[in-house]
Order: sequence, then C-alpha cells, then structure tokens
Amino acid sequence: MTQIYDRVALIGLGLIASSMAHAIKRTGLAREVVGYARSDETRQIARDIGLCDQIYDTAVEAVTGADLVVLCVPVGAMETVAIDIAPALKAGATVSDVGSVKRAVIDAVAKHLPEGAHFVPAHPLAGTEHSGPKSGFAELFDGRWCIVVPDICQDDQAIENLEALWRGMGSHVDRMDADHHDLVLAVTSHTPHLIAYTMVGVADDLGRVTDSEVIKYSAAGFRDFTRIAASDPTMWRDVFLNNKDATLEILGRFTEELFALQRAIRTEDGDMLHDYFTRTRAIRRGIVEAGQDTDAPDFGRVKS
Amino acid sequence: MTQIYDRVALIGLGLIASSMAHAIKRTGLAREVVGYARSDETRQIARDIGLCDQIYDTAVEAVTGADLVVLCVPVGAMETVAIDIAPALKAGATVSDVGSVKRAVIDAVAKHLPEGAHFVPAHPLAGTEHSGPKSGFAELFDGRWCIVVPDICQDDQAIENLEALWRGMGSHVDRMDADHHDLVLAVTSHTPHLIAYTMVGVADDLGRVTDSEVIKYSAAGFRDFTRIAASDPTMWRDVFLNNKDATLEILGRFTEELFALQRAIRTEDGDMLHDYFTRTRAIRRGIVEAGQDTDAPDFGRVKS
Repeated sequence: MTQIYDRVALIGLGLIASSMAHAIKRTGLAREVVGYARSDETRQIARDIGLCDQIYDTAVEAVTGADLVVLCVPVGAMETVAIDIAPALKAGATVSDVGSVKRAVIDAVAKHLPEGAHFVPAHPLAGTEHSGPKSGFAELFDGRWCIVVPDICQDDQAIENLEALWRGMGSHVDRMDADHHDLVLAVTSHTPHLIAYTMVGVADDLGRVTDSEVIKYSAAGFRDFTRIAASDPTMWRDVFLNNKDATLEILGRFTEELFALQRAIRTEDGDMLHDYFTRTRAIRRGIVEAGQDTDAPDFGRVKS
Repeated sequence: MTQIYDRVALIGLGLIASSMAHAIKRTGLAREVVGYARSDETRQIARDIGLCDQIYDTAVEAVTGADLVVLCVPVGAMETVAIDIAPALKAGATVSDVGSVKRAVIDAVAKHLPEGAHFVPAHPLAGTEHSGPKSGFAELFDGRWCIVVPDICQDDQAIENLEALWRGMGSHVDRMDADHHDLVLAVTSHTPHLIAYTMVGVADDLGRVTDSEVIKYSAAGFRDFTRIAASDPTMWRDVFLNNKDATLEILGRFTEELFALQRAIRTEDGDMLHDYFTRTRAIRRGIVEAGQDTDAPDFGRVKS
C-alpha cells in the first residue's frame, strides 16, 4: 500500500481512533501516527500498549506538523477541540472527524478552522459495544462502509486522499451530503439504538421480573438489544442531541407503526401480523447478501 | 448418558424439533426418535437427511407406542394436533411441547388429553433466525435455559424425566408457573421481537432512504434488529395472539419509557439521556457474566 500521509494526528483515543491507528500501521498508510486524549489515564494506557508512534499531553502538540488531523471525540466535544487546535494546524492540512452526525459537526467545527485548512468530515459505519484505547483492532473497518461528506471542501485532492486512506484501512467509501447522511443514519443507527436503550431500560425497571430472570432468559431475543444498549453513553447522548430532528421524525414514524401492530394484537388480526413479519424477512436476506452480516445462525454464536 | 425414554415422538420438524433429534442422538437419551410433519416437503427433507429413526405420514402413527410426545408446532396449531393424537397415546405417556407461551397452550391442549397422560409443558430458550428441518443442530441447547411448567402435572416422575431429558440435551432447567413464564417472556423475548419487526418495517417503508442504503449501512446498529425480525412469521404471529395481555402490558410500559426519552431529546436534556444509557450497560455485563452471550466484540463477527 502506498503511503498517503506523512503524519496523522488522532484526537481522542477510543474504539475508532485506536482501530485507525492499527489499520494505518497494518499497511503503512502514513509515516507516523500520533495521538492525544483528554484524560491522563487514557493517554497512559495508550502509551502502555504502544498504540501510536507518540502520545502527546496536548492536542496542539499532536496536530503540529500533521497533514491529517482526525477528530475522534464525541460530537459534543468537537467544537472545543476545533477551537483548541485551529491555531496550530499546518498550512493546507486536512481536518476530518468520525462523528455519527455530520450537519452538527460541520456547524460546530468549520467556522473555527483557518483559511487553507481542508475540512472533510467522514463517518465509518463500524463499531462494537466496547470502547477505549484497548478496544481497537486493525480489522474493524474491513468490508464496512465509510461515508465521506465533501459538502464544504473545495479541494478534490484533499477529499481523494481521505477516501484513499479509508479504502486502505479496508473500507468501502461512499459520498453523501450532510443532511442525507443524518437521515439515513437516523434510520439505520440512531433510532435503533434509542429503541434498544428503551427496551433494556424497561426490563431493568420491572420489579416482578427479577434482574436475574431477565439475564438468565435473555437468549430468547433480548440480548441482541443489550449489545447495542451497552455502547458508550457520552457518544450516544451527543448523537441524539445533535441529530434531534431526524431522530424525532423517525421515532414518530416508529411509534405510528408500533401502534398499528399493537392494535393488530389487541384485535387479534393474525393476517396483518403474518404479512408484516413476512415482509421484514426480505430485508435480512438483503443484508446478508450485501456482506454486511454473517448468515451463521445467531451471528455465529453457535456452530451450524 | 443414561437412556431416559424408549420412544420419543416429535410432532412438527422445525428448528427446535430437528435440534432435539440431534441432541437426543448425541448421547443416546432415547432408544428411538420418530417424527411427523404436516407438509409432505418437510417430511421428505427430514427423510433425505436422515433426521429421525422413522418419519411417519401421520401424527397418530408417530405417537403410537411413544412414551414421550413433544409438540413442536406453532402455538396456534397445538389444539388441532392434541385432538388428533389424543386417542392414539400410550397409557401413561408424557406429552410436552416447546411453545413460546404456556398459559394458552395449557388451555388448548390439556382438556383433550386422555386421563393418565402426563402433560408437562416446556419452553427451551434457544433459537436462531433459521427454520425448518435442516436448520437443527445438536448444540443448540447447550448452556441455554429450558423452562419446565409443571402446573397441571401430578406425576413427579414424569416431570423429573422430562427435566433429565433437557439436561441431557445440554440445557439448564428451571421450573416456573405458566403465568409468570408468559410475563417473563413478554419482557425478554416477545416485546423485543415486536419492536425489532417494527423498526425493520419502518426502514422498509421509508421511500427517501432507499433499500440499498438501509442495507449498505446496516452495520451501524440496524442489522442486530433484522436478525430477530427474520424469525418464522407463523410462529411469531401465534406468540402475539396467544400472549396478548402480557405483551400489550409490556408494550405500554415500553411506549411510556420511549416517550420520556423522546421528550429528553426534544428538550435537550443531556443528563437524563446520559444517566439512562449508563444504567443499561450494567445489564449487558450481567448477561455476559451469566454465560448467556459472548463478550467478543460484535458477537464475534470480527476478530478482537
């Protein structure tokens, strides 16, 4: 793989940044990968496991001389970081991010960047329920999609370089405008997460069904919800606060649909239920055929 | 493993029955396992893959001489089967089932069974999104729970034998009364399934977010819903129609909770969201510690 950047600076060292560090090293996509995290403890862990070529105590030191700076912090923290690093950015540097919402990030970050910096937001659609610098691994992005949002960047080369980096880390790359991104993600990610959190919260609340029963009998469906409801709370709080309109719109649609199914149960309309459940099977097949999930029963939890 | 039954008859040859056939054979829990399925095609497939010692063309032939008969048909079909087989049951035979609801099955089946038959309903909490006679495998029940519902059986030996069979197939066994079972399952299984079906239906409906986008970008959370929304439509229709009250109760609770989170998003109450999302993480930890799920990131879809 050709080297694309000289020095890449990762700001924030969670699951995505640590996976990027491994994936960049895997095929030598940059000469040097450096990092910064706000917490002393995170920086210490990153140093202990040798995550980057260098871990700095300040974001300013990390971005100095970098030709690519990637903001890997929760969406709500992006603006503070942008203000902090802006004066230290190298002329012509590319700034990107990995946030799960794009319009709010553009609004928060772009205005603080110096003229000549290229801001190319991106969003890798990959993750696990784990977080922190130890949770990363080089294969996280393999075969997954990364959405690049070129809305406000005038420099084609800057966009193409960032896309080449993501391809080099194993991703497929798509371009999308910020608003469409936020709507698509409200459907495929944000609303499902909110619903999973809610269902787990309901189970937790029910006094008659003891905690131990909810846990013991979770294999019957519930546990698939708990995995996504175990995701990082700060990240997800920021997602909902920053993709408010699209999430509320999809939630409204969801509630309407849920009430229709609820009424079918109450009125014992078996045909409606059967038709509905038959239709949803096709989507699952599409996902497996598109290589976005495994067909192994139970996600490969069991031998087939 | 000691042989527990002489002849076991499986009525219905889907995922659970075919897994039982393999699991019983694995350690010789019965001398003979025979089967019946309503559809010609299913019986032919079962014969082709050598699923049982014998596949019969009628349920009556299958249950004749059996000391254990297990009804492995959708809940809505239990009564018809019970009426059909009742006259052919051997004196003192045990009848069980594997339905996902228990009160409705007891009401539908018990009244048709002859005096002297022992009815011991059971519910193995294991499954995958696949169905049919080819989908079964011996390990499906290993380490999972099977709930035995002894409400209406007066014969301790019949209950203990059935429990020994489930343990022999790899399950942990618990006893529970029918109503409590139906409530626990409404929380851990039935409501999560309905919600997953709904979310997948919403995604399918949204014209602006093309099918292809929903599928391509599903790794961001949505795909975990599609697995459970790919489950057998007939089985799930019957579950909701037959556990109506408990499901509607938990759905009401779910909606109330969802509206609280929706309001927190609308009013930008970040603290409420963060607290809520933090609480739900603990449940996930409990499930992994209880051995009911893997801690591998993404259910082991990716290397860690």
